[in-house]
Amino acid sequence: MQGSTEDRQRGYVEDLIDQDDDFDRWYVDVVKRAELADDAPVRGCKVVRPYGYALWENMQAALDRRFKKTGVQNAYFPMLIPQSFMEKEAEHVEGFAPEVAWVTRGGRNELEEPLAIRPTSEAMICHMYGQWVQSYRDLPILINQWCSVLRWENRPRAFLRTSEFLWQEGHTAHANAEEAEGRARQMLDIYAEFVETELAIPVIPGRKSESEKFAGAVRTYTIEAMMGGKRWALQSGTSHYLGENFAKAFGIDFLDADGERKYAHSTSWGLSHRTIGAIVMVHGDDSGLKLPPRVAPIQAVIVPIWRKEAERGPVEEWVGRVVDALGDIRTHVDRRDDKTPGWKFNEWELRGVPLRIEVGPRDVQNGQAVVVRRDTREKQIVALDALESTVTSLLESVQHDMFVAAQEFLRTNTVDVATLDELYERVATNAGFSVAGWCGDEECETKIKNDSRATIRCLPFDQPEDKGDCVVCGRQATERAVFARAY
Amino acid sequence: MQGSTEDRQRGYVEDLIDQDDDFDRWYVDVVKRAELADDAPVRGCKVVRPYGYALWENMQAALDRRFKKTGVQNAYFPMLIPQSFMEKEAEHVEGFAPEVAWVTRGGRNELEEPLAIRPTSEAMICHMYGQWVQSYRDLPILINQWCSVLRWENRPRAFLRTSEFLWQEGHTAHANAEEAEGRARQMLDIYAEFVETELAIPVIPGRKSESEKFAGAVRTYTIEAMMGGKRWALQSGTSHYLGENFAKAFGIDFLDADGERKYAHSTSWGLSHRTIGAIVMVHGDDSGLKLPPRVAPIQAVIVPIWRKEAERGPVEEWVGRVVDALGDIRTHVDRRDDKTPGWKFNEWELRGVPLRIEVGPRDVQNGQAVVVRRDTREKQIVALDALESTVTSLLESVQHDMFVAAQEFLRTNTVDVATLDELYERVATNAGFSVAGWCGDEECETKIKNDSRATIRCLPFDQPEDKGDCVVCGRQATERAVFARAY
Repeated sequence: MQGSTEDRQRGYVEDLIDQDDDFDRWYVDVVKRAELADDAPVRGCKVVRPYGYALWENMQAALDRRFKKTGVQNAYFPMLIPQSFMEKEAEHVEGFAPEVAWVTRGGRNELEEPLAIRPTSEAMICHMYGQWVQSYRDLPILINQWCSVLRWENRPRAFLRTSEFLWQEGHTAHANAEEAEGRARQMLDIYAEFVETELAIPVIPGRKSESEKFAGAVRTYTIEAMMGGKRWALQSGTSHYLGENFAKAFGIDFLDADGERKYAHSTSWGLSHRTIGAIVMVHGDDSGLKLPPRVAPIQAVIVPIWRKEAERGPVEEWVGRVVDALGDIRTHVDRRDDKTPGWKFNEWELRGVPLRIEVGPRDVQNGQAVVVRRDTREKQIVALDALESTVTSLLESVQHDMFVAAQEFLRTNTVDVATLDELYERVATNAGFSVAGWCGDEECETKIKNDSRATIRCLPFDQPEDKGDCVVCGRQATERAVFARAY
Repeated sequence: MQGSTEDRQRGYVEDLIDQDDDFDRWYVDVVKRAELADDAPVRGCKVVRPYGYALWENMQAALDRRFKKTGVQNAYFPMLIPQSFMEKEAEHVEGFAPEVAWVTRGGRNELEEPLAIRPTSEAMICHMYGQWVQSYRDLPILINQWCSVLRWENRPRAFLRTSEFLWQEGHTAHANAEEAEGRARQMLDIYAEFVETELAIPVIPGRKSESEKFAGAVRTYTIEAMMGGKRWALQSGTSHYLGENFAKAFGIDFLDADGERKYAHSTSWGLSHRTIGAIVMVHGDDSGLKLPPRVAPIQAVIVPIWRKEAERGPVEEWVGRVVDALGDIRTHVDRRDDKTPGWKFNEWELRGVPLRIEVGPRDVQNGQAVVVRRDTREKQIVALDALESTVTSLLESVQHDMFVAAQEFLRTNTVDVATLDELYERVATNAGFSVAGWCGDEECETKIKNDSRATIRCLPFDQPEDKGDCVVCGRQATERAVFARAY
């Protein structure tokens, strides 16, 4: 850890608990102390604080850009959904009913029909598509909405599991199955590329088993990431091919070019702010957060340092030149005068800023600044006129190295297993992902879940020729499956 | 109107009703046919369609940039507020109680305490500020949130009045009254500058009378704009100095530099998507919308024109070069092959795209394109290599001219009146704003409201030396007030 021993002894920064001692507590503490989120006075809810929200805004911008490139447009649909709409698709309502919050009073009156706060918006959006689609010329419809949704939650955990959460939900309707299926896969590819490129988190893309599908979907695709600490899985984005299920329930039919009336094929896909939780858990260490430079709200924090009052003026002036030199790089100057440099070093490490730039009297004299990486703690002295290019390439290196480290972690902790004992042993010791043959039978899947609490996280797209035998029943496996416990 | 008579006779485009015949119906029709918004199957709610939402996104970006320049950060607070929190500030709950939607069931259980869907977030945000603020060093707090809020509404009108609506709400806390008051005024200035610069809508900034204040505020500031048609007012943004009211109710107190414990002074300020309604009503004409170029989702629509199949290839190729030439200008090529050019001209006029660019075989031959302004219908032929600069400067001219026209409309229809008869006559004939002396007495204000349905829209900041006499009681006026009916 940076910062003088003296600072730490004075208790300027309370130490975080080590990840190995209690990963869950480490997570809660780091989220709160880094000011990503805070507890709210409503059951199951959290407040996303400015630092956490700025991270989300950067993620939104990067993802939204990708959506729009594929022709998707944003829109906004009402958050309240009549109960009768929720009930139109049978599997859908069954899946979501236990989690819905109901509005029963508006103004001073009892409502005739309760209104659900959207847990997801298929019921509302598919109804509207039913109004808008008459002819094949009205297809495809490609709409996304950034909003919050609500699913009643008793054991909240910031970002990972809260009653209200921020997300985007895309909903598309198409003239045929192939196109819809292609769109569902395309959006999953975008999620995978986004999470790997922007968040530096490697993922395993694949299909969900029948029992883990979205309520009402024909097929659900997912990207699964491995968290640090307990090496559990986090489902980090899902995309669903819904077939004609919702089109039939909500009347999305159209006159096709061949003169026949047909039902549309629809998709939906969502990625939520739980991916912020993934950033925390994948990259964090005993000193706190480590934010990927591409989405970090602050890419370089500048800490002015002086001892004598006479040094202050020249240092502050030089800090101004350093900020100017850094151009479009997202910087913040920590000018607080009631904190020591050492205290600030610790705090910005805890908050995961990728680079720290120290500016002291000697740096002013030598026309330089000291740049320190958050991930490796490497320090280098950089001349002012080389600062922008050096910092830019350092940010790229940090991003790259963080991804490589996470990839290595995922690779090392993902192991093929041949027996149930081996699988259970791995689950019990939080050893990571286990890959095993599966016959496709729900009974075998359920047995593992009941025995070990591990579930099939996905059936990876990338399958070997030889799938081996089912790890439960020993019959010929139809696929290799990734088993793990999940958040 | 552009487009051949033949097209219109064929009924490709149904004509809009004229504004003078029925302005309210014109508004409803143009919003729906331009695909800004559509009816939703929930009482009081509308769907904001992609074209309307893209407009909102451009407005958001322009306003958000301005906020951030003044040090404001975005965050996200829960949408559900416990009933007991709503009740902590007495005037606040009284003002909002009739409009609140209540969640009484979560999952399968009745809640012990009903939760309000936020009609505004002072109660939630001030509670959190109470947790975060301990010392004067924690102040000011400058936070904004982009979200939707809900106020129960029985007679919805898209954008202007809907149960759920999109807005931003800023909430700040300060160490003293002067700073808070200054921030409230600063944000109103930003609203005025934003609405005038980006939306080309002139406004009258001023203070609200006591009876028109925000529930719980010490002072409310507003910008008022004059709509077309009936010349009614639309409150287009408000900023409130809340004094210590909310700080006392929610415990935002702090240890000041002088060692004393004090309450913070807070502000809140909001601008909603009703300003989209203002754009429609201020700029629209009998052909439909006219969107200000700076926020228009499409700044120039390109319509390829050919008659013979042999012309198609060269025209399409030339269209590609036109799009490339236009660089960062927001363009859309209307390639639909089941619509005639005339039909498209009408539709894009109705949808208010500032410039239309026609590309036909003759344009290919001559290395040019035909550019037509939506506002003046002026047409000009522009060579390809001059296209970007010409279109850029045309967009600036359109923006400027739209503002000047709206300013002229506001000026001509705002008249000083000396008698009640004159005022009532103007209100009854929808003649615009009436400016009159007011003694400051609520009784005089109420009399006008009861007799004519006109209210004091604001007490303009810009006041003459001589305020004249109160238009009701004849006593010395303390201020000149703007009277008008309002949406």
